[in-house]
Amino acid sequence: MSGTSLDGVDAALVKIFGAGRQTRIALRHFVSIPFDSRVQQELFQVASGFSVPSQVMSHLNFLIGTLYAEAIFKLCEEAGVKINQIDLVGSHGQTVFHQSEPGVFCGRTLASTLQIGEASIIAEQTGVTTVCDFRPRDMAAGGKGAPLIPYVDYLLFRHPRIGRILLNIGGIANVTVLPAAATLRSIEAFDTGPGNMVIDALVRRKTNNRMTFDRDGEIARSGKIIPGLLKKLARQPYFHLSPPKTAGREQFGMAFLEDLLRAVDSPSSEDLICTVTELTAQTIAQAIIPFVRRKSSIQQLIVSGGGSRNSYLMQRLKDILPQLAVLQSDDLGIPSVAKEAIGFAILANETLHLHPGNVPSATGARHGTILGKIIYGKNYKRLWRRSSR
Amino acid sequence: MSGTSLDGVDAALVKIFGAGRQTRIALRHFVSIPFDSRVQQELFQVASGFSVPSQVMSHLNFLIGTLYAEAIFKLCEEAGVKINQIDLVGSHGQTVFHQSEPGVFCGRTLASTLQIGEASIIAEQTGVTTVCDFRPRDMAAGGKGAPLIPYVDYLLFRHPRIGRILLNIGGIANVTVLPAAATLRSIEAFDTGPGNMVIDALVRRKTNNRMTFDRDGEIARSGKIIPGLLKKLARQPYFHLSPPKTAGREQFGMAFLEDLLRAVDSPSSEDLICTVTELTAQTIAQAIIPFVRRKSSIQQLIVSGGGSRNSYLMQRLKDILPQLAVLQSDDLGIPSVAKEAIGFAILANETLHLHPGNVPSATGARHGTILGKIIYGKNYKRLWRRSSR
Repeated sequence: MSGTSLDGVDAALVKIFGAGRQTRIALRHFVSIPFDSRVQQELFQVASGFSVPSQVMSHLNFLIGTLYAEAIFKLCEEAGVKINQIDLVGSHGQTVFHQSEPGVFCGRTLASTLQIGEASIIAEQTGVTTVCDFRPRDMAAGGKGAPLIPYVDYLLFRHPRIGRILLNIGGIANVTVLPAAATLRSIEAFDTGPGNMVIDALVRRKTNNRMTFDRDGEIARSGKIIPGLLKKLARQPYFHLSPPKTAGREQFGMAFLEDLLRAVDSPSSEDLICTVTELTAQTIAQAIIPFVRRKSSIQQLIVSGGGSRNSYLMQRLKDILPQLAVLQSDDLGIPSVAKEAIGFAILANETLHLHPGNVPSATGARHGTILGKIIYGKNYKRLWRRSSR
Repeated sequence: MSGTSLDGVDAALVKIFGAGRQTRIALRHFVSIPFDSRVQQELFQVASGFSVPSQVMSHLNFLIGTLYAEAIFKLCEEAGVKINQIDLVGSHGQTVFHQSEPGVFCGRTLASTLQIGEASIIAEQTGVTTVCDFRPRDMAAGGKGAPLIPYVDYLLFRHPRIGRILLNIGGIANVTVLPAAATLRSIEAFDTGPGNMVIDALVRRKTNNRMTFDRDGEIARSGKIIPGLLKKLARQPYFHLSPPKTAGREQFGMAFLEDLLRAVDSPSSEDLICTVTELTAQTIAQAIIPFVRRKSSIQQLIVSGGGSRNSYLMQRLKDILPQLAVLQSDDLGIPSVAKEAIGFAILANETLHLHPGNVPSATGARHGTILGKIIYGKNYKRLWRRSSR
């Protein structure tokens, strides 16, 4: 997969035992391969809403599919695994548009989501049967198409006695609330708002693309919060919507950044970045506190995603949420940076086993549904034998 | 499906017996539902290469998927068949870009094709398992992604003693050459060039969109050929490429039309339309004559698609090709206008039975491959029982 941060392709090689509630996994290897700057720029244009001809969308779809296939080959090579030992690929794709609230288009009311990265290319080049396009299937069933990781959180992190909130800080930050002894129906999950998206955009802007993110929160740590700006940013309507809710570049992309920069007179870059880092921390905390209070059994906040590598942000979360043990998913055996990629491997396995992979209480879908589209690779016969054993 | 002519959605209800070389079919019903003008305009913009934001592409993808689902419901209603009696949907989608010759993009050499009409929506709303995205899978295997109907022609029209050329005149005209006792390897197939695309575009232009096509060739019949223009148009490089080759709006869309209009001084609309109709007839004839000569067993030209309803065009084909019996596919039990839609129902059935559906000699693919992507509808359990009987 590649995320809304547009930084590159993440690929996880996962050994999966069983399926559904019996799922057990072991991560064999993980790679993260940066996009080349031309690809990144093209993607950024498309994902930011700049107009492009259908040729660009079509070519980019095939190109990203090719880059995904290359990432899989690199992953296998580094892991010392032959490609024909791989049974199944799950490919989330690159989101270039996501609107979960219906709007009017050509006289019809509709929401939609679009991921690119042609999975036919993956299935052909690797020879491995591939599952793609998970989000549109949930949205077709009336869901918001996100979040989809809650089902994976439920499979991997539910605990009979410990209540946990899983927090992933990618471009957008999202949480899954898993009370002790959770059932699928008891899960709540939603996007809290920006994760690294606004921080990264500011870092890029202020360093003229020399830096693409605030490594370990060093810039934020050297600045101080601008209280008036923080207050203004926190007024953004998204933060006051009730969950379930989903966010993206539509809420926290370029337009948000421009508004932010217009709101202040020549502040220091450090202060700006400190302030938006605080915005991420505070909006996460605000969003989860009601759940911590309501479900008294919640004891742990388990953080993953790029933001979990920002020790300043992690410290701020610990400061604001003293009632919770703040861990990284690594502490529970799932490397933080690989968690989302692992998630789509597991969702693909669920599709292969004909299990619904969405959590209706998280996405708002009318019902659970088998997610994604299946494309046969040349391993399909072997795969069928294995999955029917 | 909906074709490059952008006129509306075609849906065929087909009873299929068996699969592969044993395939037998009966058409139960066919509907063709025009796009509403707003949708048509939006599609035309996108398919003509005008730049649009990803939101438009994403929404249009979901909207077209919804219109396809509605077409299926209408089809079933008119046929008196309940939706839950349908086993499988094959959805070609709406092509908005197709480039079969590799070009450079972001420093990579690639070809690509893009069909929209989100099939997750079809599977959800109808409850029927759906196969979509046939073309990208062939292109991923090194093919041109077209033509795909030759496999269907082979299943339905091969004859032990009669050599046949199948001609479909849609926006683009394409042929499948089936020598007597054809094998898959002996098939040749390619696009000859424009079918109705240039004719329709001229009719629209000259009537200010009051008319969208030349009904029964009446306009062409009332005009006369402009020899200089015809000669000039026939010099278009596409006509001189060797098959296999594929064409689309890229070669014969707006740019071609503008060049054409620039080439002549205020001729009558009738003469222009007569001339481009002749271009369609002559380029078809030129393309197939070498095959008729080479494979002396070719005796029949079987025409389908909207152009087969243009009696002037059909008469011109008969005049230019006196050595062939020119029939409509209706004469062999396959209603001409429904043939392509029937084709994708059959290709979906082949995918369900794990049969490759492309003809490498027609598309140029490195090998045969199971086409498309499979999305489970809620009928998937029943479907599995039926297909494994």
